[in-house]
Amino acid sequence: MRNIKIIVEYDGTKYNGWQTQKNGAGIQEILTNSIHQVCSDVEKINGAGRTDAGVHAFGQVANFYTDCRIPVKKIPNAINMYLPKDIVVNSAEEVDGDFHSRYSAKGKKYMYIVNNSPIRSALDFYREYYFPYEIDYKKMKKAAEFFEGTHDFKGFMASGSSIKDTVRTISKIQIKKRDDGRIIFNFVGDGFLYNMVRILVGTLLDVGLGKIEPEDIKSIILSKDRKKAGKTVPAQGLYLMEVYY
Amino acid sequence: MRNIKIIVEYDGTKYNGWQTQKNGAGIQEILTNSIHQVCSDVEKINGAGRTDAGVHAFGQVANFYTDCRIPVKKIPNAINMYLPKDIVVNSAEEVDGDFHSRYSAKGKKYMYIVNNSPIRSALDFYREYYFPYEIDYKKMKKAAEFFEGTHDFKGFMASGSSIKDTVRTISKIQIKKRDDGRIIFNFVGDGFLYNMVRILVGTLLDVGLGKIEPEDIKSIILSKDRKKAGKTVPAQGLYLMEVYY
Repeated sequence: MRNIKIIVEYDGTKYNGWQTQKNGAGIQEILTNSIHQVCSDVEKINGAGRTDAGVHAFGQVANFYTDCRIPVKKIPNAINMYLPKDIVVNSAEEVDGDFHSRYSAKGKKYMYIVNNSPIRSALDFYREYYFPYEIDYKKMKKAAEFFEGTHDFKGFMASGSSIKDTVRTISKIQIKKRDDGRIIFNFVGDGFLYNMVRILVGTLLDVGLGKIEPEDIKSIILSKDRKKAGKTVPAQGLYLMEVYY
Repeated sequence: MRNIKIIVEYDGTKYNGWQTQKNGAGIQEILTNSIHQVCSDVEKINGAGRTDAGVHAFGQVANFYTDCRIPVKKIPNAINMYLPKDIVVNSAEEVDGDFHSRYSAKGKKYMYIVNNSPIRSALDFYREYYFPYEIDYKKMKKAAEFFEGTHDFKGFMASGSSIKDTVRTISKIQIKKRDDGRIIFNFVGDGFLYNMVRILVGTLLDVGLGKIEPEDIKSIILSKDRKKAGKTVPAQGLYLMEVYY
């Protein structure tokens, strides 16, 4: 069977996340149904990251097995015909049989957008976190350096999560200020725990507000105590940008 | 009475345009109701431009008369509390009694976004016109120069319109190509006829496709024939950027 890898972009605003929940269809299900229209033997696809309700993606990756003979170049447009306007397949390629979008992933890149302007945006409200408070940008950059490297991020995981191995490596955190009042956070790492990026941003904003000093990040990580870290910022500012293999 | 001028931003996707229609409330009505919550004597506001269903604004201007004593600086946040997330008042100032957002306007700036990438965007679908065909960008720029200046734009007006004086001055048309495949059109003029910007963009795209030569624009304008101009491109790519006084 052929193994097809696709890169998917979506606006997560209207969806209950990647996976189907009791209260509504997930993006995975909608995408699977559309692929099934093109390749009728496809009943199931694998996704690289289970994004939450409201989270967006520019570079979600999925793969599926099929015997259908459509040329790989024609796959994106063929699937896109059946997708709603807020989900799109940007590219497709044929990969080795053992490629799995989730288990083969070596790392991921997430972006988080904070709107630090005095007034909320009407056009971008559901694509960013409106946070109009005075922020010390330099302190946030300094604090970010303490997160880089390999640490046990147990304190930066949603409290309900049952994951045992909470050690992760963050290879790079970039924070950029844009002229339009937005602060763009980029996180690259080998993997992220449940809600980890949103808790990291919440903690960095606490540093920006002066509630936490950059040097305190070290002891907060070591404490492994969720309560010592900042709050979980809203899903609507988060984007899955890229999955590395 | 005080005369208050406000600048309003909105995502027009969900609305039937600025004015209320049979099939749904307009942005003007929603805004008026929110202002009424703050200044209970306000029953009516004037808008600078009657944007159509699906058209967006970064710089719509409105004004209203009131005896309420709220400090002008507090007006934006006070109104924004009552507005839906896709409409926002960005600023407010007190102006002379004879200022009228529509009749005092000396000019306007509109932007139109064309997505000229091979694949449609999921995150920006309702904010641009997806047009994946090969375009001669230089020809479009040359054609745009023929539109600049004072002309009778009768052929570039929606055919149902009853306006008599169809002479308008376009002071500047800018066309920029962005790295992400978007083409940004900017139009500055003393005023625009009904659907004029959308017909101008449709005509420029016909030039880009090679259907019309840049030099033909002159005779198309002179013909005053709507059928000789290009089609009306969709509302979703259009933004009212600024109103000049």
